[in-house]
Amino acid sequence: MALFSGPLPLIPVPTANRRDGEPVEKTPSVVALGGGHGLSASLSALRLLTQDLTAVVTVADDGGSSGRLRRELGVLPPGDLRMALAALCDDTDWGRTWRDVMQHRFTSTEGVEGSLDNHALGNLLIVTLWELLGDPVAGLQWAGALLGARGKVVPMASVPLTIEGDILTESGGGLRVKTIVGQAQLAVAAEGGNVSNVRLLPEAAPACKDALEAIELADWVILGPGSWYTSVLPHLLLPELRDALCRTSARRCLTMNMTNDTKETQGMTAVDHLAVIKRYAPEFTVDVVLADPAVVGDRAQFEAAVAGMGGRAVLGKVGSSTGKPVHDPLRLATAYKDMFGEN
Amino acid sequence: MALFSGPLPLIPVPTANRRDGEPVEKTPSVVALGGGHGLSASLSALRLLTQDLTAVVTVADDGGSSGRLRRELGVLPPGDLRMALAALCDDTDWGRTWRDVMQHRFTSTEGVEGSLDNHALGNLLIVTLWELLGDPVAGLQWAGALLGARGKVVPMASVPLTIEGDILTESGGGLRVKTIVGQAQLAVAAEGGNVSNVRLLPEAAPACKDALEAIELADWVILGPGSWYTSVLPHLLLPELRDALCRTSARRCLTMNMTNDTKETQGMTAVDHLAVIKRYAPEFTVDVVLADPAVVGDRAQFEAAVAGMGGRAVLGKVGSSTGKPVHDPLRLATAYKDMFGEN
Repeated sequence: MALFSGPLPLIPVPTANRRDGEPVEKTPSVVALGGGHGLSASLSALRLLTQDLTAVVTVADDGGSSGRLRRELGVLPPGDLRMALAALCDDTDWGRTWRDVMQHRFTSTEGVEGSLDNHALGNLLIVTLWELLGDPVAGLQWAGALLGARGKVVPMASVPLTIEGDILTESGGGLRVKTIVGQAQLAVAAEGGNVSNVRLLPEAAPACKDALEAIELADWVILGPGSWYTSVLPHLLLPELRDALCRTSARRCLTMNMTNDTKETQGMTAVDHLAVIKRYAPEFTVDVVLADPAVVGDRAQFEAAVAGMGGRAVLGKVGSSTGKPVHDPLRLATAYKDMFGEN
Repeated sequence: MALFSGPLPLIPVPTANRRDGEPVEKTPSVVALGGGHGLSASLSALRLLTQDLTAVVTVADDGGSSGRLRRELGVLPPGDLRMALAALCDDTDWGRTWRDVMQHRFTSTEGVEGSLDNHALGNLLIVTLWELLGDPVAGLQWAGALLGARGKVVPMASVPLTIEGDILTESGGGLRVKTIVGQAQLAVAAEGGNVSNVRLLPEAAPACKDALEAIELADWVILGPGSWYTSVLPHLLLPELRDALCRTSARRCLTMNMTNDTKETQGMTAVDHLAVIKRYAPEFTVDVVLADPAVVGDRAQFEAAVAGMGGRAVLGKVGSSTGKPVHDPLRLATAYKDMFGEN
């Protein structure tokens, strides 16, 4: 098959309105790391602030549509990558329509064996581009071009990863260590502080080169929000990626979740969240920890914990006014804009 | 979900090179009817001659990826529509890449249960657009816009059709009539002249309005090439479509296949092929029957049969030089160009 492997057709990125001769404001180069809905929130905010944006996305998912594709076709789980692309889609009829196409899930007719049931079309489209182009990054670029996406989406590694962790269970009156394998299982079995020795397999999987390069050249790297053990922490568990995050001259921001009380972080405070990061990557320092005042608990303790990671706490109302424990993209964008300006 | 239902973003169609002030040559308005590879050959030729091109496509397929989608999701079988769109793709890196994406089929890893095995991504993409937009024609327009497709692809009907036919089988020394249900079965069971009473269900399914309108306004309608009973004849079995084809003021061309000897036409001559059309749609007349001299058999008999349908035979070498019994798009285009000029 004759396949195109040259440069992508240029998708013109709209430039901000400005008068001729006026100096162009340089927007910062930003790398956002995470996965799932947390990363989507982060990207929805950052796309408003910069055109030089790279999303580095976890590829350890083994549940749902992504997990089935991973097992059936031996590919990277595409779901979190698809969601990141969707968050970056161009705000036009064209971009929004193809975003809706990418996000669409099939529902089988009742009573009919449903092999497509719950598959997202965008997952299948991304896998097709990977199979045709033989390169995960190039495939995601084409999917991004379809959406007119601002910025670039890359996987954290070029091979599918498996996340594992140990939990303590009662067994015959005593305590026993049980290993939980897979992101889908771990996200529900972790139960807050009860998980230890979280790790990625293969242990020294190579990080995606484009991710390492973007981190090296960035002005800001932003980790989180997202599922703490399964979307945020993994970026610090892959050795090459952790090294890049520790070595970069970029400023580092850790963004806290809008709730501490997910299944995998049950009973944990914001300070406990920071302690998890410090325990798994003690050499990782931050410039800023961004959090909503509603979730930090005791403020002095929180600020002390942030200082222990080398940074300062920036507190601001960044939550949604819908009552759901999620970030509001505009409020988050405002907080990031102030942060970029101050540092 | 906020869905876009306004007009499609305009995809600029390149205009032929011409000097300013030179009169623009009007290209004819053409409707091509068929299905499968035959229609693809027809469209590959016609796209070189006109920008006002509508493909009207059979929707009776019940085999392979299309058949599974039809059963699992209750949608029109998309496969022949996908192939027609692919044949019309824009001849650019963008158009060819998205064509390759649409035509890509999944292959499951050996030993893994393969629910996606053999599904074409383009089929899944078209179905997604249908589910999102709720309109088969609008969905195909968006898929066409992605490919930068020249012309328009519409289904012959807006509901899935079933094709049936009766064959004679030997049973206990006597002959028995057996009904074969479904295009996939009929294409292999028909065995030439041995099939009768070919029919579509539902009997009076409404034809696609866009197809009827295009036929009414066309300068030329071109039926065939294609599987004679399962891709060509169906257009004359749907009452509304047959009426439109008989009533239009457009000139009518029937294009013969490059082989008479497919499974469903085994033992049939070119004259037999014409007799099938005449038997099922006696009121359908033609202006031209286009055929390669290699397949017409006795020329005088063939010309007489064509005259019996009201037309004249145009013979020309339109076959591929590869030795395969298929049309060569450039030779077919040349023949159509002469035909358009002469009439």
